[in-house]
Amino acid sequence: MTPPDTATATRNDLHAQMIALGEAARAAMQELASATADRKNAALRACAAAIRAGAAGLKAANAEDMEAAGARGLTGAMLDRLMLDDARIEAMAKGLEEIAALDDPVGAVMAEWDRPNGLHIARVRVPLGVIGIIYESRPNVTADAGGLCLKSGNAAILRGGSESFRSSTAIVACLHRGLREAGLPEAAVQQVPTSDRAAVGEMLTMSGHIDVIVPRGGKGLIERVQNESRIPVIAHLDGNCHVYVDGAADPAMAVSVVHNAKMRRTGVCGAAESLLVARGAAASILPAIIEDLAASGCEIRGDEATRALDPRVVPAAEADWSAEYLDAVISVKQVADVDEAIAHINRYGSHHTDSIVTGDEAAAGRFLERVDSAIVLHNASTQFADGGEFGMGAEIGISTGRLHARGPVGVEQLTTFKYVVRGAGQVRP
Amino acid sequence: MTPPDTATATRNDLHAQMIALGEAARAAMQELASATADRKNAALRACAAAIRAGAAGLKAANAEDMEAAGARGLTGAMLDRLMLDDARIEAMAKGLEEIAALDDPVGAVMAEWDRPNGLHIARVRVPLGVIGIIYESRPNVTADAGGLCLKSGNAAILRGGSESFRSSTAIVACLHRGLREAGLPEAAVQQVPTSDRAAVGEMLTMSGHIDVIVPRGGKGLIERVQNESRIPVIAHLDGNCHVYVDGAADPAMAVSVVHNAKMRRTGVCGAAESLLVARGAAASILPAIIEDLAASGCEIRGDEATRALDPRVVPAAEADWSAEYLDAVISVKQVADVDEAIAHINRYGSHHTDSIVTGDEAAAGRFLERVDSAIVLHNASTQFADGGEFGMGAEIGISTGRLHARGPVGVEQLTTFKYVVRGAGQVRP
Repeated sequence: MTPPDTATATRNDLHAQMIALGEAARAAMQELASATADRKNAALRACAAAIRAGAAGLKAANAEDMEAAGARGLTGAMLDRLMLDDARIEAMAKGLEEIAALDDPVGAVMAEWDRPNGLHIARVRVPLGVIGIIYESRPNVTADAGGLCLKSGNAAILRGGSESFRSSTAIVACLHRGLREAGLPEAAVQQVPTSDRAAVGEMLTMSGHIDVIVPRGGKGLIERVQNESRIPVIAHLDGNCHVYVDGAADPAMAVSVVHNAKMRRTGVCGAAESLLVARGAAASILPAIIEDLAASGCEIRGDEATRALDPRVVPAAEADWSAEYLDAVISVKQVADVDEAIAHINRYGSHHTDSIVTGDEAAAGRFLERVDSAIVLHNASTQFADGGEFGMGAEIGISTGRLHARGPVGVEQLTTFKYVVRGAGQVRP
Repeated sequence: MTPPDTATATRNDLHAQMIALGEAARAAMQELASATADRKNAALRACAAAIRAGAAGLKAANAEDMEAAGARGLTGAMLDRLMLDDARIEAMAKGLEEIAALDDPVGAVMAEWDRPNGLHIARVRVPLGVIGIIYESRPNVTADAGGLCLKSGNAAILRGGSESFRSSTAIVACLHRGLREAGLPEAAVQQVPTSDRAAVGEMLTMSGHIDVIVPRGGKGLIERVQNESRIPVIAHLDGNCHVYVDGAADPAMAVSVVHNAKMRRTGVCGAAESLLVARGAAASILPAIIEDLAASGCEIRGDEATRALDPRVVPAAEADWSAEYLDAVISVKQVADVDEAIAHINRYGSHHTDSIVTGDEAAAGRFLERVDSAIVLHNASTQFADGGEFGMGAEIGISTGRLHARGPVGVEQLTTFKYVVRGAGQVRP
């Protein structure tokens, strides 16, 4: 007799549990897809109320997560991301209420037309289906992602960071209370049954149960998901954003836009990582930009021509042109003109967000047309790369993919469409 | 000394050739993305003229393919798909001219709005980038796919069936002549350098060079591509389409729609494979439908209640409810009402195209809302599932995926968008 293989048994258990989760999500999704906007919004507001009412329980569960994380030696920044206090709990509740206030994307007629044979065709927004969301430590994503999926009529299967498992479980319990109160199925928002990493592997193969995977987190997580997933992925990979200061730029505007693009928050994906300056304007504009950045504590890595302008500029290596620092560091290069700027950005950039500062409309038009990025700006900071700043409401992230969702991913981007065709007995010749 | 490994050397050669192809495509794409509609249309018309002028050469190349295929023992249907004659050559040329006549999707402003801070945001259609198309024997796909990509500003990398390699090579040469005449880069449309299957494997890993893969062909090809691709795939998998004849259906319309949906062409993806009939209407409507189908030579596989109506109905097995016959066979099931029909279709269908025949607007509305398929019809044949019938012009296929393109994939679906933001020096608070 061979002894029972416990690891295999556990894996089989998890697989069965995940399939059950997927089937419950599919059933819930069919109910959600035809739920009225009023009912979904009532559920979102009830979820917010349940989170406020459950604050003590959320903090208790979070304290257990924090204690375990401290014992495992997590660093200060990671512990800070994990922590829930009254302000963060209130922000989660308020976020759900803001999602409730958004327009409902489902059922909107995107286009409609008549055919010569009398058929009437409408393209109508419908939910994507079941969305799997894989994220790291911040537990508030549980409420945000669950709320965005609910609003857009999708069922959500959530897999948060293992270190926030207790916090997320408590948040999901609040969401379930809200869903129940509004008469919607609890399975609209589900959490994987274990903090084990194996749950991620299971999710990525559930192509019959999950319609799209949204990973949120560091590059390591995103790359793992993109490589392993058998399901379409909407994800944010790199944000190597540029500001190009053209020869016809207003100097004060150039200083202000570059400062904001780089220094407002250095850790966000829309932060500028590279500055290109037209050679003809370098002497007149670049010194003031360097002065401003250096005074703000930004490290400046420049090409030779830029180093000649200021001794605080250190040499840039080839790798700097592709780097996403997410820190107070910027690379600076002088270019001949807008065409060289465009070529540089299309070669080294990550097709995320790039801005031109210029008073020359022709140069701006060329840049906006030819830079192949999700967001291109003229005379504005790259840090506007954000669903809220675009007026789209809350976002689940910014997609660097080209298909389906490009740029901010809000509730509208969490939908697909169907064609609804009405006839009077037409048959095809 | 070890002998040189020829297979490895060949693989390395192919890899290098494919990377070179990918880089040429990327460069061509940047030119194409900003080419005017007039120039692209001139190129399409010049390609059509080159195909007409090159007819003799095309037939000679095709004759070599046909001879080799015959020697390899290909069957009649496969040989027919491979064959090019004057009519098929003219159809290719005409197809390119029809694509030229379509509206240009690139540059269209899909939406635009102002923000309170004065930023103006526009969502503008742009090409997807480089599209890899993998298809089977029909050489006309070379011209169709190349033309659709060109119109939508995308560079195409084509990999046709190995048995049609000489024909496709000759067609690509005609397209190159047309592109040259219009002053566009030949690398806008390229064919892989070998008929070897290894080229497919190379394409599926070129995520840095190819933005989307479109496979066209049998289920084996599609599944291989979906399983192996590291690049997003737009594909058509199954077309298990249903007609549901409701209790309130007009009997003559029901017979006519079912006949057309099943029998107009049995081999297309929009052909109905399954008929559901409301139990209350079975006695009054179903005998005439069975009579019509049987008289047309269709095999009918029914549930017990349907078999009781006519001795020509043979028993349906569980597998019949999921089957895509692509042949003169239909499965027939009686259901209680529209809700059971919806549940059956969402469970066994392939989310492609499904139709309800009824005079009851409430039942129709319920069906159109709740059946989770790319195309849902009321009182019309499922065989209208076609880009041309939708008024979208030529299509590269019908997508059964939910993301990006759902249903017919025409030139508009071969685009993505970018956000163009215009400011006056705005920075983010």
